[in-house]
Amino acid sequence: MATSKLWGGRFEEKSAEWVDEFGASISFDQLMAHEDLEGSLAHVKMLKHTQILNEQDANEIIVGLEKLQAKLAAGELTFNVENEDIHMNMEALLTQEIGPVAGKLHTARSRNDQVATDLHLYLKNRLQQVVVEIKNLQKVLVEKAEANVETIMPGYTHLQHAQPISYGHYLMAYYQMFQRDVERFTFNLQHTDILPLGAAALAGTTFPIDRHFTAKELGFSAVYENSLDAVSDRDFVLEFLSNASILMMHLSRFCEEIISWCSYEFGYLELSDEYATGSSIMPQKKNPDMAELIRGKSGRVYGDLMGLLTTMKSLPLAYNKDMQEDKEGVFDAVKTIIPSLKVFAGMLATAKVNKQKMQQATEHDFSNATELADYLATKGMPFRQAHAIVGQLVLEGLKTGVNLQDIPLEKYQEIEPKVGTDIYNDLQSKVAVKRRHSFGGTGFDQVKRQIKNAKEQLEK
Amino acid sequence: MATSKLWGGRFEEKSAEWVDEFGASISFDQLMAHEDLEGSLAHVKMLKHTQILNEQDANEIIVGLEKLQAKLAAGELTFNVENEDIHMNMEALLTQEIGPVAGKLHTARSRNDQVATDLHLYLKNRLQQVVVEIKNLQKVLVEKAEANVETIMPGYTHLQHAQPISYGHYLMAYYQMFQRDVERFTFNLQHTDILPLGAAALAGTTFPIDRHFTAKELGFSAVYENSLDAVSDRDFVLEFLSNASILMMHLSRFCEEIISWCSYEFGYLELSDEYATGSSIMPQKKNPDMAELIRGKSGRVYGDLMGLLTTMKSLPLAYNKDMQEDKEGVFDAVKTIIPSLKVFAGMLATAKVNKQKMQQATEHDFSNATELADYLATKGMPFRQAHAIVGQLVLEGLKTGVNLQDIPLEKYQEIEPKVGTDIYNDLQSKVAVKRRHSFGGTGFDQVKRQIKNAKEQLEK
Amino acid sequence: MATSKLWGGRFEEKSAEWVDEFGASISFDQLMAHEDLEGSLAHVKMLKHTQILNEQDANEIIVGLEKLQAKLAAGELTFNVENEDIHMNMEALLTQEIGPVAGKLHTARSRNDQVATDLHLYLKNRLQQVVVEIKNLQKVLVEKAEANVETIMPGYTHLQHAQPISYGHYLMAYYQMFQRDVERFTFNLQHTDILPLGAAALAGTTFPIDRHFTAKELGFSAVYENSLDAVSDRDFVLEFLSNASILMMHLSRFCEEIISWCSYEFGYLELSDEYATGSSIMPQKKNPDMAELIRGKSGRVYGDLMGLLTTMKSLPLAYNKDMQEDKEGVFDAVKTIIPSLKVFAGMLATAKVNKQKMQQATEHDFSNATELADYLATKGMPFRQAHAIVGQLVLEGLKTGVNLQDIPLEKYQEIEPKVGTDIYNDLQSKVAVKRRHSFGGTGFDQVKRQIKNAKEQLEK
Amino acid sequence: MATSKLWGGRFEEKSAEWVDEFGASISFDQLMAHEDLEGSLAHVKMLKHTQILNEQDANEIIVGLEKLQAKLAAGELTFNVENEDIHMNMEALLTQEIGPVAGKLHTARSRNDQVATDLHLYLKNRLQQVVVEIKNLQKVLVEKAEANVETIMPGYTHLQHAQPISYGHYLMAYYQMFQRDVERFTFNLQHTDILPLGAAALAGTTFPIDRHFTAKELGFSAVYENSLDAVSDRDFVLEFLSNASILMMHLSRFCEEIISWCSYEFGYLELSDEYATGSSIMPQKKNPDMAELIRGKSGRVYGDLMGLLTTMKSLPLAYNKDMQEDKEGVFDAVKTIIPSLKVFAGMLATAKVNKQKMQQATEHDFSNATELADYLATKGMPFRQAHAIVGQLVLEGLKTGVNLQDIPLEKYQEIEPKVGTDIYNDLQSKVAVKRRHSFGGTGFDQVKRQIKNAKEQLEK
Repeated sequence: MATSKLWGGRFEEKSAEWVDEFGASISFDQLMAHEDLEGSLAHVKMLKHTQILNEQDANEIIVGLEKLQAKLAAGELTFNVENEDIHMNMEALLTQEIGPVAGKLHTARSRNDQVATDLHLYLKNRLQQVVVEIKNLQKVLVEKAEANVETIMPGYTHLQHAQPISYGHYLMAYYQMFQRDVERFTFNLQHTDILPLGAAALAGTTFPIDRHFTAKELGFSAVYENSLDAVSDRDFVLEFLSNASILMMHLSRFCEEIISWCSYEFGYLELSDEYATGSSIMPQKKNPDMAELIRGKSGRVYGDLMGLLTTMKSLPLAYNKDMQEDKEGVFDAVKTIIPSLKVFAGMLATAKVNKQKMQQATEHDFSNATELADYLATKGMPFRQAHAIVGQLVLEGLKTGVNLQDIPLEKYQEIEPKVGTDIYNDLQSKVAVKRRHSFGGTGFDQVKRQIKNAKEQLEK
Repeated sequence: MATSKLWGGRFEEKSAEWVDEFGASISFDQLMAHEDLEGSLAHVKMLKHTQILNEQDANEIIVGLEKLQAKLAAGELTFNVENEDIHMNMEALLTQEIGPVAGKLHTARSRNDQVATDLHLYLKNRLQQVVVEIKNLQKVLVEKAEANVETIMPGYTHLQHAQPISYGHYLMAYYQMFQRDVERFTFNLQHTDILPLGAAALAGTTFPIDRHFTAKELGFSAVYENSLDAVSDRDFVLEFLSNASILMMHLSRFCEEIISWCSYEFGYLELSDEYATGSSIMPQKKNPDMAELIRGKSGRVYGDLMGLLTTMKSLPLAYNKDMQEDKEGVFDAVKTIIPSLKVFAGMLATAKVNKQKMQQATEHDFSNATELADYLATKGMPFRQAHAIVGQLVLEGLKTGVNLQDIPLEKYQEIEPKVGTDIYNDLQSKVAVKRRHSFGGTGFDQVKRQIKNAKEQLEK
Repeated sequence: MATSKLWGGRFEEKSAEWVDEFGASISFDQLMAHEDLEGSLAHVKMLKHTQILNEQDANEIIVGLEKLQAKLAAGELTFNVENEDIHMNMEALLTQEIGPVAGKLHTARSRNDQVATDLHLYLKNRLQQVVVEIKNLQKVLVEKAEANVETIMPGYTHLQHAQPISYGHYLMAYYQMFQRDVERFTFNLQHTDILPLGAAALAGTTFPIDRHFTAKELGFSAVYENSLDAVSDRDFVLEFLSNASILMMHLSRFCEEIISWCSYEFGYLELSDEYATGSSIMPQKKNPDMAELIRGKSGRVYGDLMGLLTTMKSLPLAYNKDMQEDKEGVFDAVKTIIPSLKVFAGMLATAKVNKQKMQQATEHDFSNATELADYLATKGMPFRQAHAIVGQLVLEGLKTGVNLQDIPLEKYQEIEPKVGTDIYNDLQSKVAVKRRHSFGGTGFDQVKRQIKNAKEQLEK
Repeated sequence: MATSKLWGGRFEEKSAEWVDEFGASISFDQLMAHEDLEGSLAHVKMLKHTQILNEQDANEIIVGLEKLQAKLAAGELTFNVENEDIHMNMEALLTQEIGPVAGKLHTARSRNDQVATDLHLYLKNRLQQVVVEIKNLQKVLVEKAEANVETIMPGYTHLQHAQPISYGHYLMAYYQMFQRDVERFTFNLQHTDILPLGAAALAGTTFPIDRHFTAKELGFSAVYENSLDAVSDRDFVLEFLSNASILMMHLSRFCEEIISWCSYEFGYLELSDEYATGSSIMPQKKNPDMAELIRGKSGRVYGDLMGLLTTMKSLPLAYNKDMQEDKEGVFDAVKTIIPSLKVFAGMLATAKVNKQKMQQATEHDFSNATELADYLATKGMPFRQAHAIVGQLVLEGLKTGVNLQDIPLEKYQEIEPKVGTDIYNDLQSKVAVKRRHSFGGTGFDQVKRQIKNAKEQLEK
């Protein structure tokens, strides 16, 4: 009869290995091996403290776990797919180490609260690393800004020259963005630094456990108030992926500008050899590969965020196997943003700025038109009339190639007799920058103020 | 010659109206009309305070803006697409009102910092509204939880009965999720409650403005430190969309369960007529439309988030027209989450729980197997043996339809002579729930503790 | 008792209007008013043809529907939120027009298959429009390419000059991308051009309907094979949103380049006044607003796609209210891509290319290094040696500012005595371009071949 | 001086290994090792055919490549990160094998067109595999449908019982969805089955290559018309990710239903042990892990799509390093959907349907109300009156628990004297299903028609 089947009855046999592999998570959740042992150690200490386990059993388990920790550090543990996930692999390894007493470790806990605990521990550690790396980048920015308070560059809107600005000011804008990233990841810690262990499968347990003891052992600031929530909450991961996405967005903007600036046409920046790739045949070519790669990697982090948001959509309480999909995205985001930050910081720290080319660009673009109008206005000319005259001069200049600062004094005096030679001072882009000293503006004093504040912020 | 052209030269004429319309934002940014006037009013007061404008000019503008506020409130303002956006529409309307002096309002500001200011004001207000609505929903949850501390229902993992829990406990799990939402939106305020005005086009201004004065007028806690950042930052919007996405994810989970529970098969919940739609021919049919719609709307909010993340990717500093796309997504998310919260709260508040059916479900599902094993263990039977025996009894029960609580005492005593009639007490699902009083567990005392804490939290 | 409630019993009253509004779709589905009438007309004709309705009733309904069509065209129909959606609004309007016989129109159909039919009709029409607009843009590309076969520009990889190319070749690359868009939208038609009507609520009907008759009336090529699938399928919409996303990705790439090319630094392109915005004070400034806006709008279309994918995830068969969320995204995408295509085509058609600046850029960038090495190799020098020598010359040139074509013949002859004056011909970027006549390469003959093929393709 | 630096000058040293690793792709692009060799082999044969390489050189390279193929198949090749990507690793390995003549293989190609070729080859193969797996699943569906044409189950809308349907009909709805998936992946082939090789870096080459020869060697149906497009096109990958997303959406819907049906409350389905996980203590528990996991994996595939759409947004022509990010998403999607399809097919093939429970559910839900009204109407009662009476009977039945089929004949005859005993026939859900024989309806003949067509389709 089976022969008449379209699908040949092939599904009726024992599930092939690949079915088990499909369901298993050990290929990726072994990244939390360290945290799994840490959590188990705290758990058994609590079981001992509350006398749920007797001292001897507990001590045997503790010794066994410590041995596993040592072996893990030495790279001596191997996992297999039959034991499905990191938790069951560890239990099997512990049993090898200390025999059947290992089974008692699982008293008053379940894989549901165990995996949540591992993930909280994992992310808590990484959040701190991420903040350190952002701060390192901020330090580079402050250093570079300090060295470039008076470096003049075109300020852009719509990628058109708008007004000249200080390069130091430009760098401090990114400092501010990354500062918000620091604040977001720090806030993220709040919803990560909570212990789910003790929620058991979903409902808590009848054993007289002491969750606050475990929390203290593991360095958690709080324990989950509700056991269902404890095992089904992945908000802390979503917050992380969302923060990582915004961070990558910031980096993508900065990279975009670096890539433009390294082009033949802009020529404002030259990357160091370590952070660019060359070409044997074209020595002038220096590809800003790292900047492009980081820019491109914004995509994968956005994808990680969208992936988990989708997975969590419409899931009933409490634990569902769908949630096994929470890990690879966060691992991927971690392994993307930390090196991205490091590479970016190095690339920026070692790049050379072509100050001359930047400044020259501000002198042939008529971006001092506003300054001229202002000057005329201070000499008493009605503002609207001043604007109209300047507009006319710019149009002429575009045709003849004569910049405003190159128009002879006589011509200016024909327009307005009160014009003096000081006009040429005002028409310098550097002067225009310096004078924008409204709070937060590009004026040199304002840039210095920002740098001072930033240094204090970084020392905290 | 034009005739030979494939595309018939049709693009050489003056751009058609629809081109202008494509570029204009007035069709949607008029939602910020109120905020635009509020911002302008504070700006002119600052210009007066710093004597950048003389008192007469300033006062005329103030009077004009106040007239516009009154007209807006009365629904008497009309906008047109020729004036492109809300800012230029308002300037035109002000000019109609008070003549050319209106032009002086734009001193020391630009549309770049103006639109950012409007958006900050807009979102700041909405954030507070969102928090209020979440708290209203939390109040319903606490109320319902209080009335259902001892209502027993099946606790699920994998949509399979795992262990019986308290319905109050279940509701409090959602309370906790929404509490994190409150905390996220509150944190969001921190990056929203900052004034960008005074950044001008991108570089600040040479006018002696007083940004802290304006901030105080508008109730902002801080001003942007860096003018480039002020006009190009949209982090606060992304944070909002990310928070809104996580909130909708929570609602989608709750809706999913409500929809299941309203099914013929579950039958745990009956929605009130106001929050369900019926069918004239099938009076038994009550579609949980509102729950489905809210669940479905998670998609659009995720889309709003992904949309802005994409738009902001790779944008160079400072302002680019791409950023005009920041508004519709946030308007859409606001108009989605506020009514979703209100409708959901109403739906939940008026739904009837079928307590009997819920409890019965916990009595025929062998979810008291753990309790039996525990009981036998307390009578001295080794745990592993107890487990094995219980497993056997459950298997038999599945075939014969006899539940554990229906097995006669004699049979239990054959297994273990120490078994007494108290065994039937322990096998009740209600007793099983009550006894899970580990911190955060489903035990009644734990549920009450959560409710007490929640009430204190809501009073703040 | 109600007074003791935290939430004040406010939910127990009759649902407020805003609850109805939340559930209603008439605010947006009225965009399908035309299609709704068209579908109804075909349905009643089928009911008449199959004698399910008698002739008199059917004719009355037909007359009524035709009146509504006329009124709709004249803008004389008004809809209200009490009638929830376009279908019930139309039924109410029809009843006003012809009395209770209107009720018979709904025989053998349900809103589930009716709304699906409307959406199929709506999208089918728009797909054809989209294809027309893409082809219009392709025509502009071909026209411009034809005029620029021999216009030389730098070809970029990593935004670095790689090798000189023909501007016509560059334009034809985009032609090819848009050709794939055409093919995708055309394939999309296949899954759109199927009639769901007759599936009724989900299971078909006992009435002797003739679905193929209705399909023919409405111009559909096929009818759904399965009634459950007919009412729950939204693949055709997802295909559209996916195709729209890829199209917007293409446009965003082209816009990115246009924006760069309009910058002071590149200066390769000047947009016409109609498709750019100026500045009164800075006449040199011309913001490529339209290009930025289209680039930015990629975000919203990606969001529309992600939104519906999310909404459809995990929905059980057949119809669920979540699916009401299918419409706004597709309406938004339609209203985004059609004008984006039109604006883009106009912008490109009227832009001026600065050929001189483009070509000059290829003459000072050492991108003819490959040509020199090739030349030396043809004179018998081993290739590796040639490469090494050229690398050396380029490095020297970068320092001294001497381009390869400016090195005197004597120097070349010192290196390799066989070098003749023809070397200066080979070092011209135009010659380098011309010679790359491998199939699909930038050689002029290859560009012409592409243009010829494209013209034939467009005539189809 | 360096000591005063905030960032300690650590970036000035030679880039650490991890920087190289960050830029390298060998860790993942080695998945295309097979395709890389295949492409190289075809390329060198073309170089020989066109006499660009002499026969001896070409033959040596061919022999070397074939050796590498054998070693790869035997698992004897090892790659290292210093050689960055699969292409340079292969070149190094070839050089080891045959010495410096290996260098000639790279004549007239570039890594830009080489990597594109590898990816086209890779995806082309996988597309065919995907189609095979979908068809296998369709075969299971048809088989199961055939066995269940007359199995009655509740048809749902809004997860409420709407009308009884055939389980075979239900299965065929999914058949149709998967059929569209087949069509989409088949269309996808069209834009994948094109050869980019010969585009070189971006502009084609001056060598007299024969791209059509290479295409024939590799089995490609066409070659890219435009070299810039050839190296920068990733549409075929986006199409794949979009198709994969829609496929996963379909699977997520089916999984959602399977999970519901496996619940205690529904109880319609029992998974085989191979495709479910049990619990030692609760033998009744059978978690539908595989269904949950597949449902959850929809998230990662959506994320892969969103990732690449984001990466490609705004990229200028032609190749940019960002595009290195195109691979991991597609590899992930391939490795997700193929096993998902296989596991799902196996799970469905081996699951047991509880026909009795399904049918019973249709007999106590008043879903035969429509049938009663229809019956009364056929006896001459005006339809509106019939509807009203039935509504009344249902309401009463809901209170008393009496189903329509259990109301005595006398009571029916009081209502309408013409009622006969045949009424009880019409009130059976099976009869109701059978009678819905409109085209595509759930009537048995219609289900059989679908199955017949499907079988023909699958034979093709």
